[in-house]
Amino acid sequence: QTLPPSVEVSVGGKVHTDVRAFPSGPVGEAPGVLVRRARAEVEAEVSGRFRAVVEPGFGEGEVELLDGYVEADLWARPGAGRALAVRAGRFKTPVGYESLLSSSDLRFAERALPTALSPRRDLGAMLRWESPRLEAQVGVFNGVPDGSSASVDWGAGPDAAARVFGRPAEAGPVRLGVGLAVSAGTASGRDGDALAGYETPGDRTFFAYTEGVGPDGRRLRLAPQATLDVGRLHVLGEYIEAHHRVRRGTEAADLAHRAWQAAASFVVGGVPRGEGRPVPRRPVTEGGAGAVEVSARVHGLSLDGDSAPLAAAGSAQRAAAWALAVHWTPVAPVRLGVTVERTAFEGFDGDAPGGSGAVPPAETFVVGRFQIDL
Amino acid sequence: QTLPPSVEVSVGGKVHTDVRAFPSGPVGEAPGVLVRRARAEVEAEVSGRFRAVVEPGFGEGEVELLDGYVEADLWARPGAGRALAVRAGRFKTPVGYESLLSSSDLRFAERALPTALSPRRDLGAMLRWESPRLEAQVGVFNGVPDGSSASVDWGAGPDAAARVFGRPAEAGPVRLGVGLAVSAGTASGRDGDALAGYETPGDRTFFAYTEGVGPDGRRLRLAPQATLDVGRLHVLGEYIEAHHRVRRGTEAADLAHRAWQAAASFVVGGVPRGEGRPVPRRPVTEGGAGAVEVSARVHGLSLDGDSAPLAAAGSAQRAAAWALAVHWTPVAPVRLGVTVERTAFEGFDGDAPGGSGAVPPAETFVVGRFQIDL
Amino acid sequence: QTLPPSVEVSVGGKVHTDVRAFPSGPVGEAPGVLVRRARAEVEAEVSGRFRAVVEPGFGEGEVELLDGYVEADLWARPGAGRALAVRAGRFKTPVGYESLLSSSDLRFAERALPTALSPRRDLGAMLRWESPRLEAQVGVFNGVPDGSSASVDWGAGPDAAARVFGRPAEAGPVRLGVGLAVSAGTASGRDGDALAGYETPGDRTFFAYTEGVGPDGRRLRLAPQATLDVGRLHVLGEYIEAHHRVRRGTEAADLAHRAWQAAASFVVGGVPRGEGRPVPRRPVTEGGAGAVEVSARVHGLSLDGDSAPLAAAGSAQRAAAWALAVHWTPVAPVRLGVTVERTAFEGFDGDAPGGSGAVPPAETFVVGRFQIDL
Repeated sequence: QTLPPSVEVSVGGKVHTDVRAFPSGPVGEAPGVLVRRARAEVEAEVSGRFRAVVEPGFGEGEVELLDGYVEADLWARPGAGRALAVRAGRFKTPVGYESLLSSSDLRFAERALPTALSPRRDLGAMLRWESPRLEAQVGVFNGVPDGSSASVDWGAGPDAAARVFGRPAEAGPVRLGVGLAVSAGTASGRDGDALAGYETPGDRTFFAYTEGVGPDGRRLRLAPQATLDVGRLHVLGEYIEAHHRVRRGTEAADLAHRAWQAAASFVVGGVPRGEGRPVPRRPVTEGGAGAVEVSARVHGLSLDGDSAPLAAAGSAQRAAAWALAVHWTPVAPVRLGVTVERTAFEGFDGDAPGGSGAVPPAETFVVGRFQIDL
Repeated sequence: QTLPPSVEVSVGGKVHTDVRAFPSGPVGEAPGVLVRRARAEVEAEVSGRFRAVVEPGFGEGEVELLDGYVEADLWARPGAGRALAVRAGRFKTPVGYESLLSSSDLRFAERALPTALSPRRDLGAMLRWESPRLEAQVGVFNGVPDGSSASVDWGAGPDAAARVFGRPAEAGPVRLGVGLAVSAGTASGRDGDALAGYETPGDRTFFAYTEGVGPDGRRLRLAPQATLDVGRLHVLGEYIEAHHRVRRGTEAADLAHRAWQAAASFVVGGVPRGEGRPVPRRPVTEGGAGAVEVSARVHGLSLDGDSAPLAAAGSAQRAAAWALAVHWTPVAPVRLGVTVERTAFEGFDGDAPGGSGAVPPAETFVVGRFQIDL
Repeated sequence: QTLPPSVEVSVGGKVHTDVRAFPSGPVGEAPGVLVRRARAEVEAEVSGRFRAVVEPGFGEGEVELLDGYVEADLWARPGAGRALAVRAGRFKTPVGYESLLSSSDLRFAERALPTALSPRRDLGAMLRWESPRLEAQVGVFNGVPDGSSASVDWGAGPDAAARVFGRPAEAGPVRLGVGLAVSAGTASGRDGDALAGYETPGDRTFFAYTEGVGPDGRRLRLAPQATLDVGRLHVLGEYIEAHHRVRRGTEAADLAHRAWQAAASFVVGGVPRGEGRPVPRRPVTEGGAGAVEVSARVHGLSLDGDSAPLAAAGSAQRAAAWALAVHWTPVAPVRLGVTVERTAFEGFDGDAPGGSGAVPPAETFVVGRFQIDL
């Protein structure tokens, strides 16, 4: 098992440790420490053209295969940054923008509410195109509920997903990226498919379907997305619409849930890298100050009004949140950050705080993070 | 923790991704993608004489330690390919031939029915002998049900296993291998031991014991096995007999289940390597055509007739299957294959398709695989 | 993902395989093989100052993240062996001496009874100081029951832990180490905190609380500890007191449990290394005899007398044990050992062997171990 010379192995990994607190609720929990992510990643490239990727993760007290896939270049000009490749296995479904972003580059402790409507990792096969100005993916997947990742059991029928993301304009320090993603398929409770509930960044469920509601037909997601870089400023906007046909007994309903976010980050010190986290101009180990970035976002998720009779007690119809964060990167692979996020809720028509269908109280979520990413 | 110079570490791994479909049943399931195997293997050799092997696996949505053992050479002539070693930990029990074959070298998507009667991985201690003409293993194991692997809890008493496999004759392009394996022990329901059901290559159970049946005594397996290489042709034949004394309430029975397979592979293009998968003469990355192999097999499993009153409803007495497969190896570590397999069933005396004791309908199983093995 | 030059990765790992038997009970189990530990450890150091450590383990049929933390040196003089560092994530709480000792260096198959009263691995943040004569740790942790490790859910409030261990005197071949550790916090059944039962080294529970008893307040542990090296002799003494306020319905009680051990090891052949396992002067692969060490210990655990009405049936009030062990290290990373341990029990006042509140029979535990540690 000495590796042949045609095989090149590259390894990476990350450890993200959090101190988390919910100072004003919802439950007045004591602060605590969490190993949010502890992952190793191994990529073996054969003859510069075939790749196997395995990324097991051990965070949050669980063990999971995050990425596990094989990939072959069908056509590639590595020098020009152009490649067409086919991939099969477990990896991220190409829908939500922030869902696809590496957790090493997030500007806040957790992803915003649009990710709750996007598929996350799924089992499937995908063609992907990459060039300096355009990336595109199109694939067929087993299909997962909103905000969820695939387990081994596959459901009723495949979901197709496609995404294009282009960087049409680049003028001096200004760089624009726009894209659109779509996924479409069907799901049915008879085949073990399920519907997802929705959670805040602090992991509290604010909407769940009541007992006996299941998917029963079309599952469609639409996700326009854009980024804008202007010098030290990076702006991200994304919107997701998730359509589900659901059934409870003999009644069916067509629901459309919507989520959006607008986020901006400013690199106070250091070298901006667009969607990637900034790196220090001079690391602190060489007398520099590292890189500092400040970020703010607003985001929301709104359930279809027709969900009211299908919602479990204590579900909210709308969540709206804002967050502020500061990150410091003393040397390139190390990052320290603080995120403060507040999420407020609105009930369905007729719900009142304190009533039997009471919406949850607002959540305040404070996270200090110490992370190393290789 | 920098490793001392006396320690040599070698690493390997594999990712096997499947697209699987059951076109004509038994349940008309939609096709789906499966990460069948995602494994890393690390072997550390100390002073050329002691070895520690750890192979965790993350396939099929589960995490498992496949191999985990320590080994010491008691005597070795590495130049002559001769060694006597002792091994302790978790590894494959030396019984079924195809069970012992690396999954990287299988000629079909899944192993044939004899493997359902063989122990797979167990916890134990083993002496093994290796020389160019003969390999032999003898060990003591915690003991596992047919087709099963050890969990941490050990059962009533140890199972002994022994196997010899020789290559007595080698005349020009003809190479014969013959062997015999035996395992013997006892199992008892009182100690938490269990009896296994039996599954098709497509993972459908076609025989299960009814409630309340447990092992109660002798467990004996006999497994003659042979391979024949003639130029580009590789032939494998194996037979396994598994004897179990079982009990249901006050009644005991001595059951003998039998399974067999005959498989042949022909290397259309590339360099044949006997039991190992063929490699390209010239890889496609250097303008070659890679290696192509076509394979066919027939196999079957037959339950003891006295199992009838002990079988759960819907159990079959006999399964018979055939399979065809084509594999293409564009560069040595990469392999693409398609397997088509059909398994038909016969019921116990008096069972009729459609009746209450109905045997399952035939299973057609189609697998496309993309695998990278290092 | 090629690593930058500022990152240094070091890897380690261990496989510990046991043959275990309970020759005279308590249950007359057959001997069996166990993969006690199968672990890989990766440490990535960035700019000589930041560290990420991930150590997954696959022993005993389970998968677990043992260590997973990030660490930063606040101040360091590596040449002088002095450093002040801050660490956050999952790692060992600095309380019991033998709990903190690497499993690679243990003198017996399992740790002694004081470890049953110490926290093991927890989620937390810690400052640690290291110098040739003194090591000290002070940290805040989520808090775990006695002898337990953290899962992801955190409890009612943080536990603080602090430990100092010094080597004040060093006179020729004599080297003394003394230390004290304290942990303090609160636990409450309302927040999901639990109380631990207590087990023998052979993994048999000899004390458990009865249904409905939970923690309800103060949790305090005191752990004085000392080591003495005199030439080839290494002696370890430790004592732990664990105070718990518990509640059953409307009745509360303040309990103090106590455990202690005295252990001595003598290096018959090879180079002694204090708390570390001895290494051969000449390894067997170069014609040497390796290193041989013989060890003996006595240890005990005594439950608070007021635990009697709170104890589950079959609980003992006191366990007392002795053990003998011999280890042989043929080459530095390889170790073979045999441990024999006998644990006897005394009941609470009024308990009698054979009565309804009968104490368990004595346990005899024999372990043969073959381990490789890198």
